[in-house]
Amino acid sequence: MKIIKPQLASGTRDFNQLDMIKRRYVISILERLFKKYSFFEISTPAIENTSTLTGNYGGDGDKLIFNILNSGDYLSKVSDSVSLKDYQSITKVISKKALRYDLSVPLARYVALNRSDIIFPFKRYQIQPVWRADRPQKGRFREFYQCDIDVIGSESIVSEIEMINIIFDFFNEIKFKNFRIRINSRSIMNSFFDLLKLKNYDDILVILDKKDKVGLEQVVKEIKKLNIEQSSIDIILRLLYLDDKEVLSELCDLGLESNVQEISNILDICDSSCLSDNVYYDFSLVRGLGYYTGFIVEVDIIDSDFGSVVGGGRYDNLTSVFGLKDVSGIGISFGLERIMILMEENNLFPKDLDKSINYLFLNFGNEYISDYINMASKFRSKNKVVEIYSKNTSIKKQMIYANKKNVDFVVIFGENEKKSQKILIKNMKTGTQEDVFIDKILDFVK
Amino acid sequence: MKIIKPQLASGTRDFNQLDMIKRRYVISILERLFKKYSFFEISTPAIENTSTLTGNYGGDGDKLIFNILNSGDYLSKVSDSVSLKDYQSITKVISKKALRYDLSVPLARYVALNRSDIIFPFKRYQIQPVWRADRPQKGRFREFYQCDIDVIGSESIVSEIEMINIIFDFFNEIKFKNFRIRINSRSIMNSFFDLLKLKNYDDILVILDKKDKVGLEQVVKEIKKLNIEQSSIDIILRLLYLDDKEVLSELCDLGLESNVQEISNILDICDSSCLSDNVYYDFSLVRGLGYYTGFIVEVDIIDSDFGSVVGGGRYDNLTSVFGLKDVSGIGISFGLERIMILMEENNLFPKDLDKSINYLFLNFGNEYISDYINMASKFRSKNKVVEIYSKNTSIKKQMIYANKKNVDFVVIFGENEKKSQKILIKNMKTGTQEDVFIDKILDFVK
Repeated sequence: MKIIKPQLASGTRDFNQLDMIKRRYVISILERLFKKYSFFEISTPAIENTSTLTGNYGGDGDKLIFNILNSGDYLSKVSDSVSLKDYQSITKVISKKALRYDLSVPLARYVALNRSDIIFPFKRYQIQPVWRADRPQKGRFREFYQCDIDVIGSESIVSEIEMINIIFDFFNEIKFKNFRIRINSRSIMNSFFDLLKLKNYDDILVILDKKDKVGLEQVVKEIKKLNIEQSSIDIILRLLYLDDKEVLSELCDLGLESNVQEISNILDICDSSCLSDNVYYDFSLVRGLGYYTGFIVEVDIIDSDFGSVVGGGRYDNLTSVFGLKDVSGIGISFGLERIMILMEENNLFPKDLDKSINYLFLNFGNEYISDYINMASKFRSKNKVVEIYSKNTSIKKQMIYANKKNVDFVVIFGENEKKSQKILIKNMKTGTQEDVFIDKILDFVK
Repeated sequence: MKIIKPQLASGTRDFNQLDMIKRRYVISILERLFKKYSFFEISTPAIENTSTLTGNYGGDGDKLIFNILNSGDYLSKVSDSVSLKDYQSITKVISKKALRYDLSVPLARYVALNRSDIIFPFKRYQIQPVWRADRPQKGRFREFYQCDIDVIGSESIVSEIEMINIIFDFFNEIKFKNFRIRINSRSIMNSFFDLLKLKNYDDILVILDKKDKVGLEQVVKEIKKLNIEQSSIDIILRLLYLDDKEVLSELCDLGLESNVQEISNILDICDSSCLSDNVYYDFSLVRGLGYYTGFIVEVDIIDSDFGSVVGGGRYDNLTSVFGLKDVSGIGISFGLERIMILMEENNLFPKDLDKSINYLFLNFGNEYISDYINMASKFRSKNKVVEIYSKNTSIKKQMIYANKKNVDFVVIFGENEKKSQKILIKNMKTGTQEDVFIDKILDFVK
């Protein structure tokens, strides 16, 4: 027989028992929160038609999509005249499906497809893996989870506020205070650059977008080099050095009061809900050139180079590519993988999360198995986690196993116990033992 | 802008809010059960190296694996001399990764890879999607969930019994009685056919394996046509017509007592646990020519052509392809998709599973939003599901929405209520209304 070296595909991970307990812990916090805010779960398939995905993530994004080979003789449809050098043309013929790259485009596809059944505003959450053919590196994986909430079909500021609230509640729940919710508005940015009479300001956005990575100094340097009027450069630079409240009043002074209104409302309501300590207006927040059209938000960890752990914003055109126009949406995405690292680095997991087995029945031989099975089912009927040791080996070995597995109680039932119809229950923490009549087990468990 | 028709990839599905509530309902029953029997969750990636997967599912299985195209210019490594007609050779060059086809082979890969960290016996559960390039048809999908439990590294009969117990508990939990757990032993079959001095009896297994599909009569017809001794045919046919207890005693009479012993033990213990009404020995149960080496089990629905909803067995060689020999394992797989249909057809879901929103705040205008937000957070602090209606439209429209969404209570807070600092809470089931002072909300919710 050929032996295959057991290995993971590059950029992928297994999660063991403790990993999964920790991931479930975080996911269940998010799920509980999402539900309380009346977001409900939907699920979309991992596989989408390539035509659904491509064109939505920018040129570079498309290159990172994992394509799935057509089944059967996929080459039969490749015309002989196609050059083997032209892999991009051939891909279109031999691969019609691809792996989900994010949860936003599948959501847009879902909403457009099910528009007649959906009651709008449509509030959904989705916690599923996505796949990106990124070069694997430390902390970056090719398969990772996104945890998204979106409201589709409402322009109400209620959603903006609730997104901020949910973020706040989440950090409150994991007992982590050192975070900062930065907000901005693409409509403020657009009007501001319109005011400066800049037709194409994508290059400025690209520079601002890098601020977290390269620092303010570098951004200032690059802005100064821009081929635009010196007065415009001066205004941009002034805004970059003001604090958040000052920027807003400066923008009002520049005549952008109506655009600033929404962000001011949001900040006021945050004030009245005592959230304001964590919420800042950040004129330089961009969140890519992608699909955001209004409010944008990003959460980062203070005094760390952690990158953003939550981000999102309002978008007006997500479903129009699927033929459903004029539907405004807003969404945020929690980055599960970064949150896991944050939890780990800051010891935010509860103790005893690895406590799993309540009762371990020692095994004194096959003749007792039927007894073990029947007794175990009584413990299980009270939702206890019970394991019956698999082999009749030495008690010493079995106790070593009990310790390794960190069990709460060991249950002993052998020849003597069978005679007396009692079990011996040993508390592994205190070391104390207790006799319990078999027909009183349920009282003991309770 | 190009408009893309929104559509699902062939053979895949979306799940809406109610679908997901139902799926989570079933999955959480399984998870609770698995945990009580001390199985713990692990997770493996959707993407595995092709070399890990192929060769484990038989020739036809390999054809159903979804292959993922290498990233970048994947054709650059295809040598010019390769013919475009030879797609199978080209696949090996242009695709190194594939989608998970089941949860068993990834488990074997996981165990072999992590052998030094795992405490054996290793009991894990795994509930994840798998992908198969089957021709899509009614009820058969290309992406579907498997719910697997396995015990690796123990030969103890405790596992066989517990697998049966878990199956029994599951059906008990969903309150469905009309199921049958059929068990058999590949070691009995092997010894039996050895006794008949048949060197290769795969063809007989193939015939028996079809019994559920084609019926006993057709099986008998095909057995009669076999090119083996008439006396052997007679013995096989006699066994097929005996009831389960009679078959076992006949097998003992034939001298297979030691092989029958284990199955008899299992049946006895099932007897003593009052499970025997649902457990049968079935001499004709085969479960494919695959990797099973001992006990096998399959659950089907009585008086239906439903096919099996749970199945599995003991295997001794699963990890040896990854270089880890002599590790016995046993596992069963719950077919979530079939269970969902079973639940639906038999009305096994609890009523009110679609009840989701507890409180809907009607929206009387932006000036109240800050109040709504603050009051909603009080309800949410008591784990209530709260929605704030997004727009200040007519109350009639908002009430229609409340009815569509099947909410428990509607909360009214407008001009009058703001003056009196009271909210009006309307019970949508009874139609009754109640005044509650804002600072007494927490008392009301409790």
